[in-house]
Amino acid sequence: MSNNGSIAPEWSVDQWLNTQGPYSLASMRGKVVMLHAFQMLCPGCVSHALPQAQRAWDMFSHDDLMVVGLHTVFEHHDAMTPTALKAFIHEYRLSFPIAIDTPGNNDYQPITMRDYTMRGTPSLVLIDRDGIIRRHGFGRIDDLMLGAELATLIATRKSSGESTEDDKQVASGCTDEVCALD
Amino acid sequence: MSNNGSIAPEWSVDQWLNTQGPYSLASMRGKVVMLHAFQMLCPGCVSHALPQAQRAWDMFSHDDLMVVGLHTVFEHHDAMTPTALKAFIHEYRLSFPIAIDTPGNNDYQPITMRDYTMRGTPSLVLIDRDGIIRRHGFGRIDDLMLGAELATLIATRKSSGESTEDDKQVASGCTDEVCALD
Amino acid sequence: MSNNGSIAPEWSVDQWLNTQGPYSLASMRGKVVMLHAFQMLCPGCVSHALPQAQRAWDMFSHDDLMVVGLHTVFEHHDAMTPTALKAFIHEYRLSFPIAIDTPGNNDYQPITMRDYTMRGTPSLVLIDRDGIIRRHGFGRIDDLMLGAELATLIATRKSSGESTEDDKQVASGCTDEVCALD
Amino acid sequence: MSNNGSIAPEWSVDQWLNTQGPYSLASMRGKVVMLHAFQMLCPGCVSHALPQAQRAWDMFSHDDLMVVGLHTVFEHHDAMTPTALKAFIHEYRLSFPIAIDTPGNNDYQPITMRDYTMRGTPSLVLIDRDGIIRRHGFGRIDDLMLGAELATLIATRKSSGESTEDDKQVASGCTDEVCALD
Repeated sequence: MSNNGSIAPEWSVDQWLNTQGPYSLASMRGKVVMLHAFQMLCPGCVSHALPQAQRAWDMFSHDDLMVVGLHTVFEHHDAMTPTALKAFIHEYRLSFPIAIDTPGNNDYQPITMRDYTMRGTPSLVLIDRDGIIRRHGFGRIDDLMLGAELATLIATRKSSGESTEDDKQVASGCTDEVCALD
Repeated sequence: MSNNGSIAPEWSVDQWLNTQGPYSLASMRGKVVMLHAFQMLCPGCVSHALPQAQRAWDMFSHDDLMVVGLHTVFEHHDAMTPTALKAFIHEYRLSFPIAIDTPGNNDYQPITMRDYTMRGTPSLVLIDRDGIIRRHGFGRIDDLMLGAELATLIATRKSSGESTEDDKQVASGCTDEVCALD
Repeated sequence: MSNNGSIAPEWSVDQWLNTQGPYSLASMRGKVVMLHAFQMLCPGCVSHALPQAQRAWDMFSHDDLMVVGLHTVFEHHDAMTPTALKAFIHEYRLSFPIAIDTPGNNDYQPITMRDYTMRGTPSLVLIDRDGIIRRHGFGRIDDLMLGAELATLIATRKSSGESTEDDKQVASGCTDEVCALD
Repeated sequence: MSNNGSIAPEWSVDQWLNTQGPYSLASMRGKVVMLHAFQMLCPGCVSHALPQAQRAWDMFSHDDLMVVGLHTVFEHHDAMTPTALKAFIHEYRLSFPIAIDTPGNNDYQPITMRDYTMRGTPSLVLIDRDGIIRRHGFGRIDDLMLGAELATLIATRKSSGESTEDDKQVASGCTDEVCALD
């Protein structure tokens, strides 16, 4: 389970882009982590979630906040290849670290996406300085709200126990805003 | 002087709208106060700043944050009357408390606007729980940044001394984003 | 009646702004006329319809197309005065001719608005070179569609009989997009 | 040369999508043709030009106007494959006919793109009922203007000689709005 209040599982990553070396979640302990799961052909990711992640990366100190993109391909696997992703990152000028989620074995769903029980893309997971999940959401989130949540987590040195669950309810497939698992 | 780090002066208000009784800044001590100065015929206020103030009012607990609109008419006085302002508030469905700044005597600039040395509209002043000015800005502010600043002030119990000055430099008159004093 | 296909009634105007002398509909015979009815405190007029009218005014030759704003105040009469309108026009930098509709006698609805059986603001009436109403619509209209309709009317030298009615169905009062009569 | 006023060259197409059979420009003679050249990883195409092409396809009669997308890959060839394009079309719900431009031999630029001397993506070519190029533009075009131009061409039975050239001047590479050839 990867709900609010639980320990964030380590990531399973095939390849890192926009960074010099591989990262682990463990290596970021002590910082707030904003994990943004996306697919390069998800319209809602392209129009809203990725620009928002880029703004957060540009705005906050990287000593306080790490923004990590996670490419969680669960459809059109032969279109959203690592090669295609690199071209996408180049054209959209994304500069924050991006991890390619490890494909599942007999499963269309990649490993980290499954371990976090994500429901589709875009998904946003906020992890506090202690490695505890503080938000686990699917779909669009307002900038004012996100800014407040990030600042609150940055200002907090010890974890607290509260929890909010705000996953959006949608049918499977893509809308303008999200792509959902079946 | 009303710069960052200084004590926020008390407001001079002719009339309160959207509230049952008159407020004072002193009565809000202990809460964070977001003072949003605007004119009803300022295009940048209508398109960006007022919707942002409404979102902040809707999003945060009023025990933590008071949002106050301040109608600081420094031009077109005979157009932006209290009667016109009431119609404007009704049509734009603004629900946070709004104060009408007291007109100046021999001056086209109203009293509170002058006491806070505001440069035009929209202006945003963030006042911490101790009554100290923590942001004093003119022009547009990003939602992600504002959310972070509000949450930081809300999370802070005692004032600190830091200061940032981010007033936008513009010529007098109105642009799409701001109306500036001469 | 002022439906599509009928002769456009002459306007009843108290005052003209943004022009040197008074206009009449009759004096524009031979040109296409885009009559845009609005109220200065109607949110949908401010955010969409007035910028669209300004773009049309800027884009087309005034020998082919006359854009005329019609201030049809049917609510908040003491707020949307001629003085207030002049300030509004100044701040929003509107440059096309604007007519103030003549107030009704025992009626809250102004004369031209009533003669055209408009349902609220924004309303858009397109009148062809022969003085025949070719569109009579209430609410938002897409730019691509409007561009096509204007060009079609401009390209047409003689009237044809077709007619389309696209009035939006709404309850009375203001929404983000329109203000409707009771 | 493929300037305004010249005959539109026939297209060189490897594969057609969103249609049952192959098209040719010759087969569309008698209709207005809106040829929209794009790349699936071009940000300006995704945010503005493709939604505009879809709106035009939805709005006008296909007896009068054919909208054709042309996938002119001149960079990241291994990312923007036919397989990737099909996934892209599916996720973005594009329904107008789309042609894949034939790759050049010793050249990174595809054949039709070269024959039309396009400068990058998005490019928009409007071809009249006689097969004559009436607009040849690079970059963003306003909806109101495009609607007017389409309606004017639709209303015109014989070609006229006028010509406008509105190519945008940009450096090579991608901006938010365009991707340009070196």
